[in-house]
Amino acid sequence: MTLVENACYITGADVLTRGRLARLDITVEDGRVVRLSSAHDNPGALPVIDAAGLRVLPGFIDVHTHGAAGVDVNAADVEGLRKIGRFFASQGVTGWLCSILTDTPEQTLWCIEQARQVIEGGPYDGAALLGIHLEGPCLSSEYKGAMPEHLLMHEASPDLFARYQEAAGGHVLYTTLAPEVPGVPDLIPELAKMGITAAIGHSGAGYDLSMRCVEAGAKAATHVGNAMRLFHQHDPAIFGVALETDLYCETIADGRHLHPGTVRLYAKAKGWDRVLAITDSIMAAGLPDGHYKLGVNDVVVEDGDAKLASNGVRAGSTLTQAQALRNLMKFTGAPVEEASKANSANPAALFGWADRGHIDEGALADLVLLDEDYEVARTIVGGRTVYTR
Amino acid sequence: MTLVENACYITGADVLTRGRLARLDITVEDGRVVRLSSAHDNPGALPVIDAAGLRVLPGFIDVHTHGAAGVDVNAADVEGLRKIGRFFASQGVTGWLCSILTDTPEQTLWCIEQARQVIEGGPYDGAALLGIHLEGPCLSSEYKGAMPEHLLMHEASPDLFARYQEAAGGHVLYTTLAPEVPGVPDLIPELAKMGITAAIGHSGAGYDLSMRCVEAGAKAATHVGNAMRLFHQHDPAIFGVALETDLYCETIADGRHLHPGTVRLYAKAKGWDRVLAITDSIMAAGLPDGHYKLGVNDVVVEDGDAKLASNGVRAGSTLTQAQALRNLMKFTGAPVEEASKANSANPAALFGWADRGHIDEGALADLVLLDEDYEVARTIVGGRTVYTR
Repeated sequence: MTLVENACYITGADVLTRGRLARLDITVEDGRVVRLSSAHDNPGALPVIDAAGLRVLPGFIDVHTHGAAGVDVNAADVEGLRKIGRFFASQGVTGWLCSILTDTPEQTLWCIEQARQVIEGGPYDGAALLGIHLEGPCLSSEYKGAMPEHLLMHEASPDLFARYQEAAGGHVLYTTLAPEVPGVPDLIPELAKMGITAAIGHSGAGYDLSMRCVEAGAKAATHVGNAMRLFHQHDPAIFGVALETDLYCETIADGRHLHPGTVRLYAKAKGWDRVLAITDSIMAAGLPDGHYKLGVNDVVVEDGDAKLASNGVRAGSTLTQAQALRNLMKFTGAPVEEASKANSANPAALFGWADRGHIDEGALADLVLLDEDYEVARTIVGGRTVYTR
Repeated sequence: MTLVENACYITGADVLTRGRLARLDITVEDGRVVRLSSAHDNPGALPVIDAAGLRVLPGFIDVHTHGAAGVDVNAADVEGLRKIGRFFASQGVTGWLCSILTDTPEQTLWCIEQARQVIEGGPYDGAALLGIHLEGPCLSSEYKGAMPEHLLMHEASPDLFARYQEAAGGHVLYTTLAPEVPGVPDLIPELAKMGITAAIGHSGAGYDLSMRCVEAGAKAATHVGNAMRLFHQHDPAIFGVALETDLYCETIADGRHLHPGTVRLYAKAKGWDRVLAITDSIMAAGLPDGHYKLGVNDVVVEDGDAKLASNGVRAGSTLTQAQALRNLMKFTGAPVEEASKANSANPAALFGWADRGHIDEGALADLVLLDEDYEVARTIVGGRTVYTR
């Protein structure tokens, strides 16, 4: 893949802008959308991308993923992270957070350093790495999922996060916390000061404690319905809080982690402005069944379903963002204008990225071009085509 | 209480009509609202009801209750049912269904006969008995709640319901069915032909079977969250179906059967057009703590909380409709215009009663007058005042 100029003129497509699809041409200069027009005139004589028959959507943003294309985030060096980003580009992703599974402080710091270099290294021929998601270590033993038990921390420490954030140069943007780990509710505003958005999850917390975290500033819930205490009528618990409040609701729409009816319930209860399509994908995404790693764990993938080799607990997915969008539409019947908010507008809103997640004059030219089957035909990051089918 | 003419002129109140409260005078003639006006003129010189400082709402309709004021529906003769209706009138109820708990066919038929006489007997000084709710006998043993195990039926029989409906003169309007009882999905359209609306509940049914019942025509779910299999992310079960679909969602808002957060979740997921405020009250409603009956069961009420004497399983409530409205508002923060739909508009819509559940010219003059604390000051059924504080 050769990088082309970050300017172009995209013509002939239906463009998703301001909530609807419209037949507009997109003028991209200096990596940004500078004009949406029906004039079909390309006044700057920019390189033309003929997108007839395609739909242009805001590029997908995956805020929870552990890898793809044979690379595990917890073991990924700079080139490994870029390899993941190239695979993601082929799935319509233009920006992503790398999710570092709970690991030793030493390994976590090593991962952070690799990510920092990629984030600060500027454009490459893949999806942009936008920041770091720390999945742990302040998580519940009982709801740990694929987290290594011996590395969980049972007391929340601002110092640890401060150390990670300093090493990251401010690029830790997101972390998952179990409300019941002592100190977590008080940690959340401290994290906010460091620029870290808190999600609650991997947790058996009850309603009141979970709501304390919402009041303290938690903004999202991690893979809702998985690795969390479920609803009871007398204590709706963390699951009930995820649905009742305006928390962004991470949703793994692979048809395995969540029943399609569960996805419909989320869309109904939360509304399309609060669902986050995440993949929670592992290194096996984009590869055949086989044996893989997820952090310190051995994982077996059969029929695309990833489980811990040790105990059969589901361990991430092989889902892609493009498939997640197709599944959201299939499961709920929602039109692409609604469902795709989960892939783009909502993750951008969660992190306050005003120039991402939507197609408007002035926004970044992070775009995915989809065919009539919602398969990815082209992906553009900052005006540069990084993938064509 | 002496019955007055079914004509009056109600002046000075804020009237809930077409979704908002407005300072209007209500002219009632022949038991119906014939005029809503701000002219303050009482042209027919009708008896005046000074309602200054009050709100007039559509009268409450309770579609699931087993008794009050010392009377158990399963043991209530004609006078007993009217006694319940008088108590209900004091709580703002203008219409109700009597819920017959699963009992022997002989006792059920006796109960039906008593109800038929009250329904066909015309106006009296209480809430109008509008029909019969059969809670059972096609229910799950595992989720039976206060139902007597030995009287449950494990095969759904159209013949039994036909027999009950014939005895009732068509007044059986509602029944609760567990989807997993063999024959239930196919029974639902048969019941519809008999004029019986199906609710699903007292059930451990999974998602697919519950959805089959929705597709077969079930319209409501019985005391959602209680006596039913709860949500799981891989099988949202009957609870998930109740929330995901447009089923009317019976809600016991006493703060005991459901956590306030659960009520908030229902209001959010279902919307205020699909929540039904029910009391599921027993004979102890309106009476002090003590020992009572619920059908064939002995019940102990402590601090207003009704439980089976045998095993401590919760057995109905001592909730009233007026308290349910206050709790819905308190739990959710919804204004009375929204929350009270659960007490009036929605039960009327469930049964297709076009002239009940709302205040409009042409509708029945079934009205409740509430003070600023939402306590009942006066209740009017078919234009007749049946209760004043």
